[in-house]
Amino acid sequence: MAKLDTVVAEIVDEMRRIPDRGTVASYIPELACVDPDYFGIAVIEAEGNAVVGGDGDMPFSIQSISKVFTLTLALGKFGNRLWTRVGREPSGSPFNSIVQLEREQGIPRNPFINAGAIAVTDLILSGHLPREALGEILRFMQFLADDPTITIDQEVAASEQRTGFRNAALANYMKSFGVLDNPVDFTLGVYFHHCAISMSCRQLAMAGRFLAQFGSNPSTGLPVVQPERARRINALMLTCGHYDGSGEFAYRVGLPGKSGVGGGIFAVAPGKASIAVWSPGLDPSGNSHLGRMALERLAKRMGWSIFGA
Amino acid sequence: MAKLDTVVAEIVDEMRRIPDRGTVASYIPELACVDPDYFGIAVIEAEGNAVVGGDGDMPFSIQSISKVFTLTLALGKFGNRLWTRVGREPSGSPFNSIVQLEREQGIPRNPFINAGAIAVTDLILSGHLPREALGEILRFMQFLADDPTITIDQEVAASEQRTGFRNAALANYMKSFGVLDNPVDFTLGVYFHHCAISMSCRQLAMAGRFLAQFGSNPSTGLPVVQPERARRINALMLTCGHYDGSGEFAYRVGLPGKSGVGGGIFAVAPGKASIAVWSPGLDPSGNSHLGRMALERLAKRMGWSIFGA
Amino acid sequence: MAKLDTVVAEIVDEMRRIPDRGTVASYIPELACVDPDYFGIAVIEAEGNAVVGGDGDMPFSIQSISKVFTLTLALGKFGNRLWTRVGREPSGSPFNSIVQLEREQGIPRNPFINAGAIAVTDLILSGHLPREALGEILRFMQFLADDPTITIDQEVAASEQRTGFRNAALANYMKSFGVLDNPVDFTLGVYFHHCAISMSCRQLAMAGRFLAQFGSNPSTGLPVVQPERARRINALMLTCGHYDGSGEFAYRVGLPGKSGVGGGIFAVAPGKASIAVWSPGLDPSGNSHLGRMALERLAKRMGWSIFGA
Amino acid sequence: MAKLDTVVAEIVDEMRRIPDRGTVASYIPELACVDPDYFGIAVIEAEGNAVVGGDGDMPFSIQSISKVFTLTLALGKFGNRLWTRVGREPSGSPFNSIVQLEREQGIPRNPFINAGAIAVTDLILSGHLPREALGEILRFMQFLADDPTITIDQEVAASEQRTGFRNAALANYMKSFGVLDNPVDFTLGVYFHHCAISMSCRQLAMAGRFLAQFGSNPSTGLPVVQPERARRINALMLTCGHYDGSGEFAYRVGLPGKSGVGGGIFAVAPGKASIAVWSPGLDPSGNSHLGRMALERLAKRMGWSIFGA
Repeated sequence: MAKLDTVVAEIVDEMRRIPDRGTVASYIPELACVDPDYFGIAVIEAEGNAVVGGDGDMPFSIQSISKVFTLTLALGKFGNRLWTRVGREPSGSPFNSIVQLEREQGIPRNPFINAGAIAVTDLILSGHLPREALGEILRFMQFLADDPTITIDQEVAASEQRTGFRNAALANYMKSFGVLDNPVDFTLGVYFHHCAISMSCRQLAMAGRFLAQFGSNPSTGLPVVQPERARRINALMLTCGHYDGSGEFAYRVGLPGKSGVGGGIFAVAPGKASIAVWSPGLDPSGNSHLGRMALERLAKRMGWSIFGA
Repeated sequence: MAKLDTVVAEIVDEMRRIPDRGTVASYIPELACVDPDYFGIAVIEAEGNAVVGGDGDMPFSIQSISKVFTLTLALGKFGNRLWTRVGREPSGSPFNSIVQLEREQGIPRNPFINAGAIAVTDLILSGHLPREALGEILRFMQFLADDPTITIDQEVAASEQRTGFRNAALANYMKSFGVLDNPVDFTLGVYFHHCAISMSCRQLAMAGRFLAQFGSNPSTGLPVVQPERARRINALMLTCGHYDGSGEFAYRVGLPGKSGVGGGIFAVAPGKASIAVWSPGLDPSGNSHLGRMALERLAKRMGWSIFGA
Repeated sequence: MAKLDTVVAEIVDEMRRIPDRGTVASYIPELACVDPDYFGIAVIEAEGNAVVGGDGDMPFSIQSISKVFTLTLALGKFGNRLWTRVGREPSGSPFNSIVQLEREQGIPRNPFINAGAIAVTDLILSGHLPREALGEILRFMQFLADDPTITIDQEVAASEQRTGFRNAALANYMKSFGVLDNPVDFTLGVYFHHCAISMSCRQLAMAGRFLAQFGSNPSTGLPVVQPERARRINALMLTCGHYDGSGEFAYRVGLPGKSGVGGGIFAVAPGKASIAVWSPGLDPSGNSHLGRMALERLAKRMGWSIFGA
Repeated sequence: MAKLDTVVAEIVDEMRRIPDRGTVASYIPELACVDPDYFGIAVIEAEGNAVVGGDGDMPFSIQSISKVFTLTLALGKFGNRLWTRVGREPSGSPFNSIVQLEREQGIPRNPFINAGAIAVTDLILSGHLPREALGEILRFMQFLADDPTITIDQEVAASEQRTGFRNAALANYMKSFGVLDNPVDFTLGVYFHHCAISMSCRQLAMAGRFLAQFGSNPSTGLPVVQPERARRINALMLTCGHYDGSGEFAYRVGLPGKSGVGGGIFAVAPGKASIAVWSPGLDPSGNSHLGRMALERLAKRMGWSIFGA
């Protein structure tokens, strides 16, 4: 058995036995009732070898992980003009902070905090109906994962639309500065729906291969983005991918990654592997508790840290 | 001629011809009069090969770059207890911001903003006289660089001591929360002096080899720090090494690094090279304008980005 | 001619000749086109004597001045329970700041900043349809002013509803903390409409007589509020009535007052007079430029400052 | 017995029986050991009648109350130029907040928060030695109170000088923006000493008569300040005199006043009386708990509220 298989099997076994599983996100009612015992992992190596463990084929709500893919899509359509709407610096604040927006005239710090992802969604929406924009995002995910069965969980989307007052505050606030072009309800509708995309670890790791492969989609051999853009998206994930726990994640895991409040984390070992883990319980910064632990062990045992093996 | 020699020579040549050289820091009077035309670079590869270009043997004031080495020294002495005094997250604020301290009870966000480095200095000082602590820091630099001629520029230190009111505000503020153990003047004295260490690019690149070499000093073959600690210091440099320009540096350069207002930047290509550049003119975030540009070109041409070559 | 008549006539004459008339509010489109040359004033003395000058019978959009009357109405219905939803301290921030809300868990600093007035409106709305709540507010104004012709300017209300993104951000933000009970759109609808009440200086001064008369309505002799409550509303106007220009207004004018971005200011000389002035041009804090100047002169010449005649 | 005598006697009696006496300030060691059972009051009416009750002749540390008198002195020397160094708006923040200074380029919000009073002290100091400036302040207090025995408690001053790190932070911070002219240590030395002036309620009420008497000193009949300036100092006390409890004080008491962490409060009923109360226990905003309660009862029973009797 290859080393990766052994390491993944060990981690699945170790994670099963950890009693403290963090706290399942309660602020989206539909997510609050997910069983904290789930743990899944999928690793797809550069050569295409896929190792999946635990509940790695169980779909879950990818939530903020979708921000990596909407950013990729928006960069493809708008190029560097996107950076007039959103910054590239860590925020030093929780994911839904509005304070930074007041200080910086409605320009979100980066595309991975909620405000930034809403601004990116607004760009993708421009010139389209919400349904069209959403269709484009979903087809992009299906294409990247090479899997046309990926769907949106309508109940999660509806739940968030009913209760997402903080995101509505962020969107209206940016709108008051002219940072959003579309009606607030349209932009929020698309945002809530792409956050409600449902995927398994295997599907996520498949979808993110281009970031581990210098921008290319190994299924087709064709570039999804230029190599430099893949590097830069990885850099953004490293510095901003985990809200105000980004420094801690870099310090402990040493891989670019993006977490979601559904308990998923997508991570990249550049040139080596595309990785997804999932466990619903979160730590105080809103990142999957077991997920981060699993990635820390994986990076260490495989020698994949980008900061020196 | 090897590839690195060519690349370094090209960069030195290109940098010489760039008309916009940034703005020399004016807030430390002794630094304000440095000629903005200087540009130096030194790269020391894993195997020991050193390539030095431009003014790479000219000493300059390393300023905040010293924070990497005082952090290393303090971690060696106090281990993870250090993290009760200082955090590990990007601050999202300028290097001398005091706002974050009020919100977080006097605990600085990370060891690379001024407040954090002052807290680290205070730890090193504990149980010692300022002169002893400073001697220890200087000897550590000389040992790492394998060069006993490295000294402190007393005029720069005195200049900063006369005018460093913002740092005095930060130190007194932390003291009011009990985060500093020693008299404020003692801690600030040691801080201002280690920032005033004078080194050339070659000396800096030599001193930082252990961070490119998994913690080991290639001169002696002995570990300076454990490999994991070297990785983690690199991670901190990546997320926090350039104040509120850290995200931008990661995005463009893709190497862990630490800048100083003297115009120096120290950077690491893990497993590949220890690098120092110097040009006195700064960009609006306080990082060397040409220095960052040079590192961006170096990382790209050598394929050294940690986010995918 | 009595002293007050002379003073009012002088002030009308002086205001007419002042070239710098401030800047008409542009953020509500319907208000942006009001002629800055208007200046009106009405003073109703304790004994009932009314002195009206300039454009004192021309109706204008009272905007935030309505907050004094919705607070009075809400205190009548909910008493001191109201203070669990909103504080009583000056905010030290612009009228539409959202930063303070983040720090204080969604509780607005006082009932005269926008967030606070929205929270008060939400209380009045509870258990009612928006149309009913609005009818109650309008009838209260008509009763106080003894004038059933007072109406809401539907075009101003509609204009604000189309463009009031900042207020929508504040309302959604409070909703996310559970500070609002009703659907955000309902509460905002009532808020935008009561801000769009149209009144002349004479009508406003009539409506506010109870605050100059220890809580009683001189038309009926009956109490509107208890004397202590009238004093306390006056105290709130003094400390919080002019956004981040409240200190300046107290310093220069020395009367409790409340301004609106329509250019009106309502003020009280306790025991002596109820006052309204109107001029559409605003100063940088959002308060009527000539209005404040006129009140400063009136208070000085009549010896009405509450801080010593 | 006149009404005032009865009211003061009642209040002394009522205060004696209240079990919850607040919390004695602990951050200045010398003040921490004062007995919380003390309660003193002195009221000096316009005609010169003095009513003193409880421990009204016991000296205590006036602390921030000195800020009213240093402001008066500085306005006399520098006039309105003073307002280029300090603002006139409520801060909405605790007395020792540094956040506001960062946002507003080192200019304190008002002369009654610590930063503002340090800036005012720096102005008084300019062109003098610390000892001379302090002598001038002390003589001014002695002159106003008509009592040459008033002194500075050197132990309190020394205690504060040893432990006043927060104030040292504020002063160094303002110095870094160029808001202070003198060496930080000099300015702080004078500041700590004038805060350590020791006075009884009777002496304080005597010293503050000019603010109740339209600027005149009744002992001499001569103006201390112009009537307009007295009004304006009263306005500043009303809006800013009690840190982030200023709104609450205006709401409940309805008199201009200034509190100190020694437990004293000085208050003015314009045209009617100069008042001082003292009880060492503080409420969470840092204002004397019984002191405010006593003033609320006094203002109510005497009908002295400036917001309508």
